[in-house]
Amino acid sequence: MNEPFAAVDLIRTKRDRGTLSTAEIDWLIDRYTTGFVGDEQMAAMTMAIFLNGMGRQEILDLTNAMIASGERLDFSELGRPTADKHSTGGVGDKITLPLMPLVASFGVAVPQLSGRGLGHTGGTLDKLESIPGWRAELSNEEMYAQLRELGGVICAAGAELAPADKKLYALRDITATVEAIPLIASSIMSKKIAEGTGALVLDVKFGSGAFMKDIDRARELARTMVELGTDAGLNVSALLTNMNVPLGRTIGNANEVRESVEVLAGGGPADVVELTCELAREMLALAGKPDVDVEEHLRGGQAMDVWRRTVAAQGGDPDAPLPTPSESLEVRADRDGVLVQQDAYQFGVAAWRLGAGRARKEDPVVHSAGIDLSVKPGDAVKSGDLLWTLHAEDADRFSAALADLEGAWEIAESGASNTVAPLIAERIATQ
Amino acid sequence: MNEPFAAVDLIRTKRDRGTLSTAEIDWLIDRYTTGFVGDEQMAAMTMAIFLNGMGRQEILDLTNAMIASGERLDFSELGRPTADKHSTGGVGDKITLPLMPLVASFGVAVPQLSGRGLGHTGGTLDKLESIPGWRAELSNEEMYAQLRELGGVICAAGAELAPADKKLYALRDITATVEAIPLIASSIMSKKIAEGTGALVLDVKFGSGAFMKDIDRARELARTMVELGTDAGLNVSALLTNMNVPLGRTIGNANEVRESVEVLAGGGPADVVELTCELAREMLALAGKPDVDVEEHLRGGQAMDVWRRTVAAQGGDPDAPLPTPSESLEVRADRDGVLVQQDAYQFGVAAWRLGAGRARKEDPVVHSAGIDLSVKPGDAVKSGDLLWTLHAEDADRFSAALADLEGAWEIAESGASNTVAPLIAERIATQ
Repeated sequence: MNEPFAAVDLIRTKRDRGTLSTAEIDWLIDRYTTGFVGDEQMAAMTMAIFLNGMGRQEILDLTNAMIASGERLDFSELGRPTADKHSTGGVGDKITLPLMPLVASFGVAVPQLSGRGLGHTGGTLDKLESIPGWRAELSNEEMYAQLRELGGVICAAGAELAPADKKLYALRDITATVEAIPLIASSIMSKKIAEGTGALVLDVKFGSGAFMKDIDRARELARTMVELGTDAGLNVSALLTNMNVPLGRTIGNANEVRESVEVLAGGGPADVVELTCELAREMLALAGKPDVDVEEHLRGGQAMDVWRRTVAAQGGDPDAPLPTPSESLEVRADRDGVLVQQDAYQFGVAAWRLGAGRARKEDPVVHSAGIDLSVKPGDAVKSGDLLWTLHAEDADRFSAALADLEGAWEIAESGASNTVAPLIAERIATQ
Repeated sequence: MNEPFAAVDLIRTKRDRGTLSTAEIDWLIDRYTTGFVGDEQMAAMTMAIFLNGMGRQEILDLTNAMIASGERLDFSELGRPTADKHSTGGVGDKITLPLMPLVASFGVAVPQLSGRGLGHTGGTLDKLESIPGWRAELSNEEMYAQLRELGGVICAAGAELAPADKKLYALRDITATVEAIPLIASSIMSKKIAEGTGALVLDVKFGSGAFMKDIDRARELARTMVELGTDAGLNVSALLTNMNVPLGRTIGNANEVRESVEVLAGGGPADVVELTCELAREMLALAGKPDVDVEEHLRGGQAMDVWRRTVAAQGGDPDAPLPTPSESLEVRADRDGVLVQQDAYQFGVAAWRLGAGRARKEDPVVHSAGIDLSVKPGDAVKSGDLLWTLHAEDADRFSAALADLEGAWEIAESGASNTVAPLIAERIATQ
């Protein structure tokens, strides 16, 4: 019982807007991980942090303490720069799939440790598991080997990476403290720093389909994470990107893989191509390769080559047909005009309802389920034109999904303004 | 699982400075009492309440929900008014002992359900247990019978009274949320309202020896409790009283009983007499008996008569010798002058260290331990005069107690101002 601190004193400090020391934060996270500090004390602390905030040093200390709770990877033996990307999650966000092979094709190692989806935004691993045989769970040895041989990997983050974060996240989820910026920032960054990447680009989304609805909060989160990454010795920058509209023309799993392969083949929707290329340029620049022509590696097949080899290395067949849905329902325009709205959140919920996402962690996803968008905001439509197609394994799911889409889109009179908000709103880098 | 609310939503409401409805608060406290809502969720809620506060209706709802978690007493069958007093606790505060018999001697029933001490302030039950044979634990039947026959009782509050409060208090204690005024007010008042008294006087102390050091916070707590009692249909008022200096000339257990008996015999220290009489007048006025001469019942022996009969009814012998200490240490003045300081907190801690209080709930108290004060602030002293006497069962305790008293008192030059702050600073009643 020779404890240097008492949890109740540290809670009182934060409650009274004081600053926790490095030693106090180290102690708290260590003792919380081992169970000496209970969930009820940590819950009071997280609410105090939510309401009173944390300073830059405190956030760094918290992040370091969470890193120290688990293992730390080391990619220095690879002998080349490493770069990673993190997205705060959005509807139709399949960017990791074309981005990893594109960046890796320039000789920068991309260790993309990813997660599964929960709620209305999909998970990268769920999408990739549409590919027959593809395996998300790799041992550390397999991951290192693939990075050495192919320069890139997308796989599940091991439970040994920042276990304190996992425990704390579960607690925040039931105590209404998820949205605290110091806690979000340290949660995301602890895993990325423990992972050992040298460069990191953050895709921080704002808008209806994003975790942060508001661009000001998204900016605050982005700045906090950029500071944190800089303080931890990473080369880091962030893009604030618009998530009021789904990204690309597919929302789901198998259909998002299909669209990603189109981008890798030099085609694909303009917004997915734009964001993939911009994030690739950021990653490459931070990894010491500025001014490369990333589009060239999409057109020239170098990115596709890495894609096919990494899919195969993880047991997947890049040529195998992807799952197709048993049931489809087409939605058509009832008038002429211009599509002026396509709400990301509502389309995300509809796709989730069709089976593309999961309600509980234990649930499986339906890989063939989702939505294909034939038109996007700014497109002119004629009465009878196909707007979008819903896909499910079970036709009973359509009515609920259609209900979710009520009011989610709008066709304005022909001649209405068809200007669309820019996809990339701001770039934030170390001052 | 057809729950009308989710705890996480209610936490979010309070986190975002919203107002919880009556139904939400009822549900929360009920489900917390039964364990459906966990300690970690309630801890986040109490921190949100601490930092964001609660409105008058919310505090009333919380109080009512805690009352509903347990049994409710009913004194209407007694056929006479009931009055009770609550003190927020202080050093040397033995007022309940003379006050109960004094008020009861006027035909007002006084159901004084009390607690034990923890930390530097003593508990009424601990003091009374100095009397050989005296029993704190009564069944409800015994309590009602004694109130019917003798008009007064001081006994342990049953565990059936507001059990939600007991559970919540234990949680607040380890999560640094004890000092939240809405939670203090509802904790105190839920037990007093459940107890069923018609009139209630609150002795809210401020100063070094009090829970609230600051008079402004004490005033806010007093106002909150007076509003709450009024909303619950009680006749209620509060006195703000000074606890910078110990009350009376004894700090401990047996010695405080001895001093209380002196007051009941028409003597005793002026401050104890003043506060006892003022609180008695408040209680009697709120119970419908204004303008009675309370001093008369001290001088005339009516209060002493009730004291002796209630002590005997609870198994105590009012004539039995009280425990005396094995070891005593006298502290004497080293100069001539005027005592200008006698810090309540430090004297309270010293008495606790001598054995008069307990460090953990399970510990016993030493009834003979404590401090007798021969001088009080404003008194002139001569070098060699006895200042105070420490009492313990074990002489090893004196050095620590003397260390606690370092800097706790001051003798100023003769001729220094000997004005003393008034004991009763303010009276607060329903507007």
